Amino acid sequence: MGNRETLAYTLIWIFLYLKSLFWRFRPRYTVVKSVFFRLAHHLNIPRLAAVTSYNFDFKLYMVNKVASVNKALDEAVPLREPALKIRESMRYTLLSSGKRVRPMLCLAACELVGGQESTAMPAACAVEMLHVSSLIQDDLPCMDNDDLRRGKPSNHKAFSEGIAVLTADALIALAVTKMAASISLGVSSERVLRAVMEMTRAVGTEGLIAGQAADIAAERIRFEENEVGLKHLEFIHIHKTAVLLEASVVAGALVGGGSDEEIERLRKYARCIGLLFQVVDDVLDVTKSSEELGKTAGKDLVARKLTYPSLMGVEKSNEYAKKLNVQAREHLQGFDSHKVAPLLSLADYIVNRQN
Amino acid sequence: MGNRETLAYTLIWIFLYLKSLFWRFRPRYTVVKSVFFRLAHHLNIPRLAAVTSYNFDFKLYMVNKVASVNKALDEAVPLREPALKIRESMRYTLLSSGKRVRPMLCLAACELVGGQESTAMPAACAVEMLHVSSLIQDDLPCMDNDDLRRGKPSNHKAFSEGIAVLTADALIALAVTKMAASISLGVSSERVLRAVMEMTRAVGTEGLIAGQAADIAAERIRFEENEVGLKHLEFIHIHKTAVLLEASVVAGALVGGGSDEEIERLRKYARCIGLLFQVVDDVLDVTKSSEELGKTAGKDLVARKLTYPSLMGVEKSNEYAKKLNVQAREHLQGFDSHKVAPLLSLADYIVNRQN
Repeated sequence: MGNRETLAYTLIWIFLYLKSLFWRFRPRYTVVKSVFFRLAHHLNIPRLAAVTSYNFDFKLYMVNKVASVNKALDEAVPLREPALKIRESMRYTLLSSGKRVRPMLCLAACELVGGQESTAMPAACAVEMLHVSSLIQDDLPCMDNDDLRRGKPSNHKAFSEGIAVLTADALIALAVTKMAASISLGVSSERVLRAVMEMTRAVGTEGLIAGQAADIAAERIRFEENEVGLKHLEFIHIHKTAVLLEASVVAGALVGGGSDEEIERLRKYARCIGLLFQVVDDVLDVTKSSEELGKTAGKDLVARKLTYPSLMGVEKSNEYAKKLNVQAREHLQGFDSHKVAPLLSLADYIVNRQN
Repeated sequence: MGNRETLAYTLIWIFLYLKSLFWRFRPRYTVVKSVFFRLAHHLNIPRLAAVTSYNFDFKLYMVNKVASVNKALDEAVPLREPALKIRESMRYTLLSSGKRVRPMLCLAACELVGGQESTAMPAACAVEMLHVSSLIQDDLPCMDNDDLRRGKPSNHKAFSEGIAVLTADALIALAVTKMAASISLGVSSERVLRAVMEMTRAVGTEGLIAGQAADIAAERIRFEENEVGLKHLEFIHIHKTAVLLEASVVAGALVGGGSDEEIERLRKYARCIGLLFQVVDDVLDVTKSSEELGKTAGKDLVARKLTYPSLMGVEKSNEYAKKLNVQAREHLQGFDSHKVAPLLSLADYIVNRQN
């Protein structure tokens, strides 16, 4: 063990000793690790760097981020006079326990390029609103006709079909308003506008809606038939899922002040994550129960929907997910290896999630 | 008749003579009038000014503007590969013959404050898209359940409920994208962002959706009951109609480079126009046939909806409309009396329209 490593471990020991003395200060675990990681980099100790990097406490990171996002979402849709059913309905689905993957991607991308969490929070709320809007629509009787969402009755079951349709729209409008309001946080109006356009593209006919429309069409086609193959499936998923994940990452990087080159690398990462997300979703649909998922399981199968497992089997789908994860990681090479930890962990989380 | 007037009428005569000689040039009527109006101002001849101002050819103005708007809307939703049903559906309702009142208000406001028609065209298209989106939703079985719109089967009848819901969303997303793209026409990103926020406010829970939600609630209440009175009705109409008309005018003035003071005066004008529009709409619903309206007539009555005629009778509703028109005109005082002609005529048009 070299002198530098001895020095580092001595410092760790001193730190732990001081921590036991002054435990009331309770420095955040992630902060402490960050200090040691930087120390390891500075003293050129790859082993320590590796330990502090790979041991990045993603669970803690996630809990913190989800809490901040939930708080911001709660404040974004206040219940005020006149007390409209529509606001109640927006809160019902928006504040029900989601994984908040899109907001996390947005915040992590912002912080990766040097921005503050608070700067990206409006964008993070906006992408979650767009996502929730699409969930409410997906569940409508004229779409997937699903009664269960995030473990609770879906919006049109809890309220009414009319209110659900209006709620989905209201969330889109609020998302753009929120995003545009980022200007008050010192983000340039050019960047805010670019982020707005990323988002509206993601939910429009080049994104979510194209995917949803193609999905409705594909649902009625038997998946054994060859003419509707992997290409069609990827079209659906790129549009239904990947484009909004991409917008989340890009919007975060934009408001965080990322360079065009950084934004493009993050965009490629996001595209892999997007497909990855859907492959895993499809696999979970056939392998898990409704209770575990918090939504109706096996519904893709019942609807004879085109899915990855139906096209290539569960095993090959899992392999494909792993391959996409490797590709996603490759696009992050070149960024600060410490700062990139949240995005790497998010990719792992998406692969390994159970609901 | 003073010398100046003699001179002016001589010039008119010379012009008419030249016109008969060079009729092939066919100078636009509005341009010719504009020349004489300016001449009248320059030579201080109020009578000539009054004649050329009040004789503003609104019909020609409207035909020209509607043609430009229709062309721009056609280009905004191209039918391209992959040929998605959703694009067909967007075009179906967007390009069906509408009155294009909102785009006209937008263009007129832009030109009033010194902007070009082309600068406000994306904003004009955007407000029409938002309007059409709300029409498609209004007609859904879970809302007003209307089979007829603009003389054709409503969107969900021509396509399907699922496609109609997606189309309404796609139009909102496209509207914001279009509006944001105004930046390529040299409008500052600050102004574009402000216009975007006006629009999303107009369709969100502070606008259209609040009105629609309140409307759904009011529909089930007997209009004879006192507790739901004029105040509730105005809430519905301000939100369902007036806020988007306001956004149309304000967005036009914003991209046209209007000062804050000009924008605020135009906003007040738009608010009067908004209520005016709805009063007339309600009256038409009880006095005209479905054929004349291009949509199901008397449906408000059947649904026992809260309307102006149901609250104050047809006669008093007409009087109220005239009063609102006078108020609207008052807010335009102080603007160039020639340039203001389109907005004055638009107000008259809204009062006197027959469908």
